[in-house]
Amino acid sequence: MASDTISFARGAPSADILPREAVRDAASVALTEDWEKALSYGTGIGHPGLCEWIAERHGGLEAGQVMVANGSLEAGWMLFEHLLEPGDRVVVEQPTYDRTLLMLQRLGVELVPVSLEDDGLDVAALEAALAKGPIKLAHVIPNFHNPAGCTLSAAKRVRLVELAAEHGFWIFEDDPYRELPFEGEALETMLSIDKADRVVHASSFSKTVSPGVRVGYLAGPGAEIAKLAKRANETYISPNMLAEAVVLELCRSGGLDRNIDFVKDALRARRDALVEALNEQIPEAEFVVPGGGYFLWLDLAEGTDTTTLLAEAKGEGVAFVAGPDFMIEGGTNSLRLSFASVPPDRISEGVGRIARALERIRAGSPA
Amino acid sequence: MASDTISFARGAPSADILPREAVRDAASVALTEDWEKALSYGTGIGHPGLCEWIAERHGGLEAGQVMVANGSLEAGWMLFEHLLEPGDRVVVEQPTYDRTLLMLQRLGVELVPVSLEDDGLDVAALEAALAKGPIKLAHVIPNFHNPAGCTLSAAKRVRLVELAAEHGFWIFEDDPYRELPFEGEALETMLSIDKADRVVHASSFSKTVSPGVRVGYLAGPGAEIAKLAKRANETYISPNMLAEAVVLELCRSGGLDRNIDFVKDALRARRDALVEALNEQIPEAEFVVPGGGYFLWLDLAEGTDTTTLLAEAKGEGVAFVAGPDFMIEGGTNSLRLSFASVPPDRISEGVGRIARALERIRAGSPA
Repeated sequence: MASDTISFARGAPSADILPREAVRDAASVALTEDWEKALSYGTGIGHPGLCEWIAERHGGLEAGQVMVANGSLEAGWMLFEHLLEPGDRVVVEQPTYDRTLLMLQRLGVELVPVSLEDDGLDVAALEAALAKGPIKLAHVIPNFHNPAGCTLSAAKRVRLVELAAEHGFWIFEDDPYRELPFEGEALETMLSIDKADRVVHASSFSKTVSPGVRVGYLAGPGAEIAKLAKRANETYISPNMLAEAVVLELCRSGGLDRNIDFVKDALRARRDALVEALNEQIPEAEFVVPGGGYFLWLDLAEGTDTTTLLAEAKGEGVAFVAGPDFMIEGGTNSLRLSFASVPPDRISEGVGRIARALERIRAGSPA
Repeated sequence: MASDTISFARGAPSADILPREAVRDAASVALTEDWEKALSYGTGIGHPGLCEWIAERHGGLEAGQVMVANGSLEAGWMLFEHLLEPGDRVVVEQPTYDRTLLMLQRLGVELVPVSLEDDGLDVAALEAALAKGPIKLAHVIPNFHNPAGCTLSAAKRVRLVELAAEHGFWIFEDDPYRELPFEGEALETMLSIDKADRVVHASSFSKTVSPGVRVGYLAGPGAEIAKLAKRANETYISPNMLAEAVVLELCRSGGLDRNIDFVKDALRARRDALVEALNEQIPEAEFVVPGGGYFLWLDLAEGTDTTTLLAEAKGEGVAFVAGPDFMIEGGTNSLRLSFASVPPDRISEGVGRIARALERIRAGSPA
């Protein structure tokens, strides 16, 4: 790969939008005022003050409905191991987050693919899958989907929660991007709609503070959270108390909300630059304009092979992730662009490089 | 439990010996000079600079022989899951760390108990176990054993490494207390003796920095470490980069070594106070005087039931862990005292309370 490669591949913010001063200040306060918790073993729930803050942020959950963990990926893994047995039928969106697919495959469950529409999961297809047999869990990314960029509509959220109650399946509401809407407020969570204790919600401070702090959480029925916290304690005693004390100080001080405003502005500018560049330079591209988050999912003309395109693009000095990585099958003519990782003044150039690679593979003369 | 309970139960330092100023200073430097690594995703190995520092600390391993993880307990769990299948025969010391027993039982392996002598694992008993069938792994805590307080002799280390090479089993050298000898230097690690790639060593900064930072590591054959790091990446992307950057700054600046000197002095004073109080107040107690670390393991007269004693002791305002928690069977007349958790001026009073509880259960008139 060229040394000046523009990478739309990684779902991570570029370094220039990491809040280093705010985290440094919060660390100083946390290690002055909350040092004993920060430096001692906690329990499986993590920092109790952070559990309380998160419960409040979710509109007044009980603190016992929340456990903090070392990132929401591992929290989800613990949830999967807790709820699922080999052979269980598990609904996954198509496309979906590649690491989730990998985890579920490792557990030996039966994956039931349900496609995404512009407003999220195809609920009719889910109902058809339910008609064929019981579903144990549905994995749903409701806001600013990774990789698809779409958002689950309010009506579909209500319907999914109804179906879960009626058929007795779990909804894993995997929601790391909720705090990053570019216009207005995010829609209500399925966790807040659920009255039947069928939803476990996961989120993270990776996108609102920084990935390196590795602080995520689960929120859901207290009885399940208590079992998961016990398992977490057996696995690692407690999650990272230092990082959680720092995050809690950011939450308490208002530093988190200030950073969310800053990050949303930065990401919106990147999204706008990307949409403009795609419209100008790759007019065949079809996509849902993401209302927030990190990702845009792009369909190219039928017959395009984005894996071939990626190889060509790397030579051109640009990277992305080809669609098949997010699919059980298919995705051949799709790809994911992360706009979080590319400063806005590099986006047009990056898209231009993809356009040139596309021209070259179509001309049948790859470099 | 009484509100002024003196607890010898927890294997954790009392708050007064946590290095809050040193960690605060290190956090400030790390978030000024190493903020990009501290705040970004890493990979499964953790902070590469910390891997290099640890490799050097172990006398010049390759950096690729080290992976940093969120505490050595979870690192050990990942190792067990990687190496072991249900039914494998796994040697555990008796007594041994209770959380390790729990993990191995969860994995469905066959536990092969081997008792401890004053100088560590009974190697003749291990050889007898090998004669009965293949062993997949032996879990060994070489220094200042938890809970037994003993240290594996240099000769036994050499012999164990020879046996592992000859019979093809893994040694998991679980060594969190190595940096805390009260006199002189710790003995050579089995990792450094091993030439046959049969030893995986685990250690931690929980006892040399603070438990709340949750930074531990594995060091061993590069090929195994690479596989484990891949698995770690699939589980949590990267361990806590913020905490690792802070720990690395402590390592680089000399703050770690200064804190180790401070902690060793504090622990030595506690150990001395405990040994003196036991000799005076519970003269029947038999124990190996720990040469470092956190724990003293105590045998009372045959027929004593330390579980009954514990219930009585709690009423008296003192806590410890009864022997059976660390044993597959037996341990009835033994108990573990953590001297890390009790300031020296409270130790004599704590032992006095145990002595009174012991008198009372012997008089057959528990309160």
